[in-house]
Amino acid sequence: MTDQMRRIVLASRPEGAASEDNFRIETSPVPAPGDGEVVVRVHYISLDPYMRGRMDDAESYAAPVPVGGIMGGGGVGEVVASNHPDFRPGDFAFGMFGWTTHACENGNQLRRLDPAQAPIGTALGVLGMPGFTGWYGLNELGRPKPGETLVVAAATGPVGSMVGQLARLAGLRAVGIAGGAEKCALATDTFGFDACIDHRAHDSARDLRAALRDACPAGVDIYYENVGGKVLEAVIPLMNDFGRIPLCGVISWYDAGGLGAKAASEGLSLPALWSTILKKFLSVNGFIISNHYDRYPQFLADVGPKLASGEIRYLEDVAEGLENTPAAFLSMLKGGNTGKQLVRLI
Amino acid sequence: MTDQMRRIVLASRPEGAASEDNFRIETSPVPAPGDGEVVVRVHYISLDPYMRGRMDDAESYAAPVPVGGIMGGGGVGEVVASNHPDFRPGDFAFGMFGWTTHACENGNQLRRLDPAQAPIGTALGVLGMPGFTGWYGLNELGRPKPGETLVVAAATGPVGSMVGQLARLAGLRAVGIAGGAEKCALATDTFGFDACIDHRAHDSARDLRAALRDACPAGVDIYYENVGGKVLEAVIPLMNDFGRIPLCGVISWYDAGGLGAKAASEGLSLPALWSTILKKFLSVNGFIISNHYDRYPQFLADVGPKLASGEIRYLEDVAEGLENTPAAFLSMLKGGNTGKQLVRLI
Repeated sequence: MTDQMRRIVLASRPEGAASEDNFRIETSPVPAPGDGEVVVRVHYISLDPYMRGRMDDAESYAAPVPVGGIMGGGGVGEVVASNHPDFRPGDFAFGMFGWTTHACENGNQLRRLDPAQAPIGTALGVLGMPGFTGWYGLNELGRPKPGETLVVAAATGPVGSMVGQLARLAGLRAVGIAGGAEKCALATDTFGFDACIDHRAHDSARDLRAALRDACPAGVDIYYENVGGKVLEAVIPLMNDFGRIPLCGVISWYDAGGLGAKAASEGLSLPALWSTILKKFLSVNGFIISNHYDRYPQFLADVGPKLASGEIRYLEDVAEGLENTPAAFLSMLKGGNTGKQLVRLI
Repeated sequence: MTDQMRRIVLASRPEGAASEDNFRIETSPVPAPGDGEVVVRVHYISLDPYMRGRMDDAESYAAPVPVGGIMGGGGVGEVVASNHPDFRPGDFAFGMFGWTTHACENGNQLRRLDPAQAPIGTALGVLGMPGFTGWYGLNELGRPKPGETLVVAAATGPVGSMVGQLARLAGLRAVGIAGGAEKCALATDTFGFDACIDHRAHDSARDLRAALRDACPAGVDIYYENVGGKVLEAVIPLMNDFGRIPLCGVISWYDAGGLGAKAASEGLSLPALWSTILKKFLSVNGFIISNHYDRYPQFLADVGPKLASGEIRYLEDVAEGLENTPAAFLSMLKGGNTGKQLVRLI
């Protein structure tokens, strides 16, 4: 065990798109655990789109990261020292450690992991926040019915792939959207999507809509929204009456200045969007999964066995080393990842 | 009983704002009732904002009125001839008669009215489609809780006044929006709104928002949406987390070219709207009351007694004569009415 820990802090707020200049590495001694505390050596850092929003000083559902503060987020690692009765060195745990090699947290804030049940990295993806987000949004807000059609973007990512696979298991037609032919092939071959459309091959919302219309001959009943932008504009006119739109993210707009950005829309006006919600009796529900962790045990009980049986599959992109975390994060915001983006530290 | 009936047909589709030129009066003999049919002499025609949408040839939740076809809508009147076992001359009935002095309909399409229970005109307003729309949207989609704050526009109209009064009875703070000081005084004095803001005294969404912020010190939990436009833009940033937006109309946009209009928004962008739904976990539900008439008996059982006891009040604007129907309708679209707009024919 080293005596020094490294972490990445927010050096400055982005103006427009985020860049590596917005981050800085700091080094400090690994602390000794206080009463009830546990020191963890982090094995995997989770990188997630919502972190981009926290870099801005805009009103959102979570306080922004202060300039000079550590970039927050989930991680998994091994306990190396403990003053908490529930944890001993050698145990594995999930916690909100942030972008850091080590963390010292109250043991009550950690969740024990059993590496024999699933690789610990899955606690950040398919069995963690993103998978849970997909499961909750689809089932609770999407209310899927057999024979319906679902559309979800970032189809090979940890949210989209969960949504698509669960929709297929529930008897829906699942149509994915992804960037590039390779991801589209993965969506259909690995995750079983009925079709997947390459948004890079369709520059405008109009072109993308035409491709979606072909892939959704019976219209769209559930649009699981995690991207906003061009995909939103393409899908809205294809929604069926009584359609549902669970809304958990708008990644395409994050780098335009954070949530609440005034990015220009391509062609779908606000009145047209609002009028479509009215005239097609749509149900649009924004949510963040952290408000719903009372349902997490139910999620694990449902998806855990499906993962073990191979009914649910997942993909991970693993970057190596703390110093490469900002680059991996920035690449993910541009769709550079295929599956769940992790950073391996050990 | 005259042998001739008069009706108003759609002479042409509006280009932009509707005008009297879009209508034409036609005269024809009153038909004799066929098997199962009933002839009604119409006493009151209902004028409602949704009728504007049907003048356009745009996709919506109902087929457009064909050019040359009668303007549709609800009415109440007296049976003058009947070949249906449930109706006799002298009975009163509600039906979708349209803008006409007489109608011949299958008796199964009519609903009997008891003039001893409530004036028959109330079947078009407080106890009819608009009142039911307010009741359903508030209770089913707004999910009101005591202590919360509700905002609704067209506060003295038949939907807004129902929503505001029911919200007050449920223990909410009810804030209305209306056009002009006189309507605002009616909203607070007659309907018991806690406050009412004159949108004509606040030209921009920003000014209106400042006034709303003062009137809603604890933010807005339910925005009952029936207008769109400037009011929508003013309210959205004031929504509280987990707020609800029942969406039954966007009257401010209808005359800009119908549902789906590409009217310019003043300052709220589509990404900002969409991001606010996400970050505040809002629930937006479009609906049309005709999908929910299974709940109508429950509405009558709830609101009927409240009307009789004076807990629920209502206002009517009554124009006189079929020939004045288009002018009354066009005036209503501009907010010229105060309460439920009717046309009296007898």
